[in-house]
Amino acid sequence: MESNLFWFIPLGSILALIFAFVFFRQMKRESEGTDTMAKIAYHVRKGAMAYIKQQYKVVAIVFLIITMTFAFLAYGLHVQNNWVWGAFLTGGFFSGLAGFFGMKTATYASSRTANAARKSLNSSLRIAFRSGAVMGLVVVGLALLDISIWFIILNRFIGSAGGEGHKLMIITTTMLTFGMGASTQALFARVGGGIFTKAADVGADLVGKIEAGIPEDDPRNPAAIADNVGDNVGDVAGMGADLYESYCGSILATAALGAAAFMSESAVQFKAVIAPMLIAAVGTILSIIGIYAVRTSEKADQKQLMGSLNRGVTLSSVLIVVFSLLILKLLNIPNALGIWGSIITGLFVGIGIGKVTEYYTSHSFKPTRAIAESAKTGPATVIISGLGTGMLSTTFPVLFVVIGTILSFLFSAGFDFSNMRLGLYGIGIAAVGMLSTLGITLATDAYGPIADNAGGNAEMSGLPPEIRRRTDALDALGNTTAATGKGFAIGSAALTALALLSSYIEEIKIGMLRIGENVLSFGNGEFVKTASATLMDFMRYYEINLMNPKVIVGVFIGSMMAFMFCGLTMNAVGRAASKMVDEVRRQFKEIKGILDGSVEPDYERCVEISTKGAQREMLLPSLLAIIVPIIIGVVFGVPGVMGLLIGSLSSGFVLAIFMANTGGAWDNAKKFIEEGNLGGKGSDAHKASVIGDTVGDPFKDTSGPSLNILIKLMSMVSIVMAGFIVAFHLL
Amino acid sequence: MESNLFWFIPLGSILALIFAFVFFRQMKRESEGTDTMAKIAYHVRKGAMAYIKQQYKVVAIVFLIITMTFAFLAYGLHVQNNWVWGAFLTGGFFSGLAGFFGMKTATYASSRTANAARKSLNSSLRIAFRSGAVMGLVVVGLALLDISIWFIILNRFIGSAGGEGHKLMIITTTMLTFGMGASTQALFARVGGGIFTKAADVGADLVGKIEAGIPEDDPRNPAAIADNVGDNVGDVAGMGADLYESYCGSILATAALGAAAFMSESAVQFKAVIAPMLIAAVGTILSIIGIYAVRTSEKADQKQLMGSLNRGVTLSSVLIVVFSLLILKLLNIPNALGIWGSIITGLFVGIGIGKVTEYYTSHSFKPTRAIAESAKTGPATVIISGLGTGMLSTTFPVLFVVIGTILSFLFSAGFDFSNMRLGLYGIGIAAVGMLSTLGITLATDAYGPIADNAGGNAEMSGLPPEIRRRTDALDALGNTTAATGKGFAIGSAALTALALLSSYIEEIKIGMLRIGENVLSFGNGEFVKTASATLMDFMRYYEINLMNPKVIVGVFIGSMMAFMFCGLTMNAVGRAASKMVDEVRRQFKEIKGILDGSVEPDYERCVEISTKGAQREMLLPSLLAIIVPIIIGVVFGVPGVMGLLIGSLSSGFVLAIFMANTGGAWDNAKKFIEEGNLGGKGSDAHKASVIGDTVGDPFKDTSGPSLNILIKLMSMVSIVMAGFIVAFHLL
Repeated sequence: MESNLFWFIPLGSILALIFAFVFFRQMKRESEGTDTMAKIAYHVRKGAMAYIKQQYKVVAIVFLIITMTFAFLAYGLHVQNNWVWGAFLTGGFFSGLAGFFGMKTATYASSRTANAARKSLNSSLRIAFRSGAVMGLVVVGLALLDISIWFIILNRFIGSAGGEGHKLMIITTTMLTFGMGASTQALFARVGGGIFTKAADVGADLVGKIEAGIPEDDPRNPAAIADNVGDNVGDVAGMGADLYESYCGSILATAALGAAAFMSESAVQFKAVIAPMLIAAVGTILSIIGIYAVRTSEKADQKQLMGSLNRGVTLSSVLIVVFSLLILKLLNIPNALGIWGSIITGLFVGIGIGKVTEYYTSHSFKPTRAIAESAKTGPATVIISGLGTGMLSTTFPVLFVVIGTILSFLFSAGFDFSNMRLGLYGIGIAAVGMLSTLGITLATDAYGPIADNAGGNAEMSGLPPEIRRRTDALDALGNTTAATGKGFAIGSAALTALALLSSYIEEIKIGMLRIGENVLSFGNGEFVKTASATLMDFMRYYEINLMNPKVIVGVFIGSMMAFMFCGLTMNAVGRAASKMVDEVRRQFKEIKGILDGSVEPDYERCVEISTKGAQREMLLPSLLAIIVPIIIGVVFGVPGVMGLLIGSLSSGFVLAIFMANTGGAWDNAKKFIEEGNLGGKGSDAHKASVIGDTVGDPFKDTSGPSLNILIKLMSMVSIVMAGFIVAFHLL
Repeated sequence: MESNLFWFIPLGSILALIFAFVFFRQMKRESEGTDTMAKIAYHVRKGAMAYIKQQYKVVAIVFLIITMTFAFLAYGLHVQNNWVWGAFLTGGFFSGLAGFFGMKTATYASSRTANAARKSLNSSLRIAFRSGAVMGLVVVGLALLDISIWFIILNRFIGSAGGEGHKLMIITTTMLTFGMGASTQALFARVGGGIFTKAADVGADLVGKIEAGIPEDDPRNPAAIADNVGDNVGDVAGMGADLYESYCGSILATAALGAAAFMSESAVQFKAVIAPMLIAAVGTILSIIGIYAVRTSEKADQKQLMGSLNRGVTLSSVLIVVFSLLILKLLNIPNALGIWGSIITGLFVGIGIGKVTEYYTSHSFKPTRAIAESAKTGPATVIISGLGTGMLSTTFPVLFVVIGTILSFLFSAGFDFSNMRLGLYGIGIAAVGMLSTLGITLATDAYGPIADNAGGNAEMSGLPPEIRRRTDALDALGNTTAATGKGFAIGSAALTALALLSSYIEEIKIGMLRIGENVLSFGNGEFVKTASATLMDFMRYYEINLMNPKVIVGVFIGSMMAFMFCGLTMNAVGRAASKMVDEVRRQFKEIKGILDGSVEPDYERCVEISTKGAQREMLLPSLLAIIVPIIIGVVFGVPGVMGLLIGSLSSGFVLAIFMANTGGAWDNAKKFIEEGNLGGKGSDAHKASVIGDTVGDPFKDTSGPSLNILIKLMSMVSIVMAGFIVAFHLL
C-alpha cells in the first residue's frame, strides 16, 4: 500500500514537467511584437545565455574538485559512502537546470508580455504569470524527479545489513548530499547572478538616472542591456536555483528526520520518510489547479487582478491543508493529527512572515512612508531611517519562527519536550508544508522579473508610455504577492536549517558506526551503545552545551561568517558597479551622439564588465561557505561545528530579513515618491530616495537572498563531511 | 598577608581620585581666553548640565522602580539576598557620578584647550590630555572605591553559614548586582546621550553644511550649541558611564569566577577573588605613572606628540605585564604562570583588535581610501562600500576574540579543556588585564572630544583658523590612539560577557540552595548534590545543549534583540534629527539676519529638541534590555536564558564592531577628502562623503557603543533575577 503511494511522487513530478512544457509552448506561440522588440529580446537572451554558460563553466570546475574529494573520501579513506559523489553531482545539475529553464522561459516571455500589454493588462498578466508558472513547475518537477530517481536507486542497491531501519537512515542521509549539490549550485547562482545584476543596475542608475537624467531602461544607456540581462541571470536563474535548493532541502531533511524518528519501527519508518515527499507531490498537483484558477475577465482592473492571483494561491493553500491530513491518514502515521498541526503551524508562520514583510516594505503602510518622508531631509536620513526600520522589521519574523518552532515541535511530539525526534520531524514537516505549493507561489514570485523585463523591452523599443505603465503595474502587483512567497522561503529556510542540525548528529552517529566506534563512554564509567544513543546522549558525549568554549567559539565564528559573507558580496557589487559607472561615463564622453540617440552605445562592453565582475567575485564568498565548516570541524570538532551552525543560522537569518526588508522598503519608498507624493519625480526628495533604492539593490538582490542559502549550505557541508570529521578526531 | 594586600585596592582608588583632583585644579587654573570664549563655554556647560539633570531624573525613576522590585524579591518572596537592592543603587550612582565628573571637567576644559592652542599645539595637548586623564582616573577611582567598600561591608555582615567558600560566593555574586546598576546607568547614558548628540550633529550638518554651506560649528548655525552640548553628554558622559561599567563588570565577574573556581580551597579562594582587584589597583598606579610620562618639548610636531602619547600607554602596559606576574606570585596562587599567560593573551587580543580597527578606519590604509574613492561615483556607492567594508572588518576582531578565549582558557586551565572553572577564570582575568590600565587608555580616548569641543569653541569665538587646525590635529591624533582603547573596550566586553555566563549558572545554583533544592536528579535515577554540582552537571540537568528547542529559541531571540535594539536607536536618531532639521530650517527662514551674522539664532530651542528627543526615545530600548531576559526566563526557563545570552552576545558583538568600524571609516573617508584628495572640500565626492559620515554618526556614537552595554546588561539582569527564575519554575 505505502509502496504504491510512493508512485505518486514521480507522477507529481512528471505532471509538473508536462504542464511546464505546455505553458512554455503556449507562451512561445504568442507574437514577439515589432522587429525592434524581437531584436532587443534577442540581445538580452544572447547576453543571458552567454553569461550563464560562463558561470556554469566556473561552477563545473568547483563541482569537479568537490566530487573528486568525495570520491577520495569514499573509495580512498572509507569515511563516506560510495553514493555521495553521484548524489552531489545530480543535485547541482538539476538545480542549475531549473534555473536555466526558468531563465530561458523568461527571456522568451519578456517581449511577448510587452506585446500583450499593447492589448490589455489582463492578457499581459496571463503570459507573464504562465511563464512564471513554467519556472515554478520546472523547479518542483525536477526536484521531485531527482528525489524519486535516487530513492529508487538507493533503495535497490543499498543493503539492509544494519537492519531495515538503518538502511533508510543511510538512504535519506545520502540523499541529503544532493541537497548539498543543489545548495552549492544555488549559492553560486545567487551570488554570481546577484553581483552581475546589481553591478549593472547600480551602474545604469547612477550615471543614467542621476547624472544624465534619462529614464530607466533608456536605450541610450550603455548599461541598459546589461541591466536587463541581469534581471534574468540574477532574479530569475538565481531564484530558480535558490528555491530548488530550499524545496529539496526541506523535503530531504524531513525524510531524514522521519527515518531517525522511527528507526525502531520499520513499518512506520517508511511512511514517515515518504510523507514529506507525498505532501510535496500532491502540493504540486494542487499548484497546477491553482494556476488554472488564475483567470480574469478581459476588462479586469488592477485590484481584480490582485484578487485573482490571490485566489489561485489561497485555493492551493487551503487544498493542501485538507489533502495533507488525508495523506497522513492514508499513510496511517501515528499522531497524524499532531503532525498535521505542525504543517498548519508552518503555513501560518509563512503567512505571518509574509504579512510582516508586506507591512514593512509596502508603501501602503506607515514604515515605508516614514522612510519616504525622511527623504525630505536628504539621502542621509533616508539611509538612517531605512536601516533603522529594516533592523526593527526583524522582530516579528523572528518571533513567528520562534513560536512556529516551538508549536510545530510540540504538536508532533505530543506536547512532550523530551520527545526530541518526533518534535524535530514536526519542525521539518512544517517547512515542507510551507513549500508544498511552491509551484504556484514561485509563479507569483517569478512573473515579477518577467514583467519588469517586459517593461524594459517596451521602453527600449520606444513603445508608448502606457505600455510601460501596464508592465509596471504588473511588477508592483508581483511585489505584493511575492511577499508571501518570500515569507515562505525565509521561514522554511530557518526551519529546515534547524531540522538539519539533528541530521548532522545522525550523520555523526553513522560515521562512528562506520569506523567501528560502537560505544559512547561518558567519563564516569557510564556508556551507551552508539547505535541506540539518543540525541541527548550525543549532546552529553560531545559536551555540545553552552559552557563548552568550543561551542561558544563556533557560535562567534558563525555569526561573523554571516557578516563577512555579506561584506564580501556588498563590496563585490560596489567594485563591479564602480567599473560600470566608469565605462558608462566613458561611453557618454567618447562616443558622440549617444545621448541624442543617433549612435547606438556599446552594450556588449557593459555585459562583459558585469560578467567579469561576477565571475571574479563570486568564488571567494561561495568557497568560504564550503571550507569554513570543514576547518572548524577539524580544529574544534563536533561541538565547534554545532556552534558554528547555530551561530550562522541565528545571525544569518536575522541579517537576511534585515537586508531583504530594508532593500524592499527603500525600493517602495522611491516608488511612493514617484507616484507623485512628497514632490514626485525629479524633486530633491526623489533624488534622495533613488540613492536609498540604489543602496538597497545589493541588500535585497545579492547579499540578503544569498544568506538563506549560505546557512543551509554550511549545514549540508557539515553533514556530508561528518564522517570525515569523526574519523579525523577518533582515528 | 593576603588581607593586608587587600588594602592596596582602596589605596589605588584614593590615589586615582587625588590625582584626578590635582589635574582638575591644574586645568581650572588655566585661562579661559577671551570673553566670547568664556561665554560660549558657559552656554555649552549650562546646556550639558541642564540635559544631564533631566536625564538623571528619568533614570532615577527607573532605578526607584527596579530597587523596589529587588526589595520585594528579597524581603517579600525571599528569592534574593537582602543586599542586592543597595548594591544595585550604588552601582548606578557611581557610574552616573563618573560620567558627571568627566563631563564637568570636559566642559571646563574646552575653552582652556582652545585658548592654549593659541600658544602652541603642545600646551593645548597637555590641557586636553590631562583633562581626559581626570575622567580616566575618576572612572577607575570610583570603581575601585565602590568595590572596596562593598567588599568590606559584605565581608563583615554576611555570615559564613554555608562555609567560608560559600560566603565568598555570596559576596562576589552580590557584588555583581552593582555591575547591573552600573550597566543600567551606562545604557541610559549611552542611548540618551547618543541620541541627543547625534540628533544635534546630524541636524546641524544636514542644514548647515549641506544646505546653507556654512562650516561646522559656525555660530550662525542654530544647532551649533546643541552639537557641542551633545559631544559632552554623549561622547564624554556616556563614555564615562560606559567604561565604568566595563571596568567594574570585568573585575566583578572575574572575582565571582575566582570564588567559584576555588570554592573548596578557601585559602586560595580569597586570593583568587582579590587578584583581579589588585591587578586593577596596581594598574591604576601605573596609569598615573604613564600619564606623567606624556611630556613633550614645546616645539613638538604631530608625530612627536603621537610618539609621546604612545609612550605613556606603552609604558603602563609593559609595567602591568611585569607587575601582574609579581602580584600573582606574591599571592602565591596556583598556576600563577598560566594565569599570567591569560592576562598577556588578553592584552594581545586588545592590541590586535585595536590594530584592526585602525587598519579599517584610518585613512592611512586601503579600506578607508577605497571608501573615499567610491565617493567619486556618488553617495550610494559610498554607503555600499562603507557597509561592505564594515561587515568585512568584523572578521579579524572575532578571530582574535576566539583565539584569545581559547588561549586564556587553556593557559589558566593548564591546557585541559575539562578544567572548566579555572579556564573561565582565565577568560575573566584576560579581560581584567585589558582594562587594568584604563586610567591612561581612557585618558587618550576622552581627550578627543575635549579637543573637538575646543575646536568648536574656537570656531564660534571667531579665533583664526590655525587654532582650529591645531585642535583638529589633536582630535585626529586622539582618533588613532583611541583605536587601541576601543579595541580593549570591545574585546573586554566580549570576554566579560562570556565570563558572566558561568556566573549565571553559579547564581542558579545559589538560588536552588536558597529554596532548598539540594539535589539535581537526572532522569535515569542518577543524581548529584546541588552544592557540589559542576557546571557540566547543570548543563545536563537543564539540557542547555544545542538540540534543546528552548535553547535554540533563546539564541534566535538574542540575535534579534541586538538588531531590534539598533533599529530602535537608529530610528530615534533619525526622528530627532528630522525635527532638528525642521527647526534649523525654520530659524533660517523666519529669523532674518542669522546667516549674515547680525542676529543670534535661538540656540536653546535646539538644545530643547535634542533633550526631548533623547528623553522620549531612550526609555523603550533600555527597558527592553531589562525586561526581555526576565520574560524569556519565565517562559523558557534557564535553557532559554542561556540561549538568549549567547545569541545576543555573538550577534551583538559582531554588530557592534560592524557599526563602530563602518562609522569610523566613513568619518575618516570624509576627512581624507577634506585634506585635499579626490577633489577636496566642496567637490561632489566631498558631498557624497559627508552623507556617508552623517549616516555613520548614529552607527559609531549611538547604536554601536550601546550594544556592548546591552550585551552585558542582559547578562547582569539574568544573573540578578536567577533566584527568582529558579523559584518560579520549581515552586
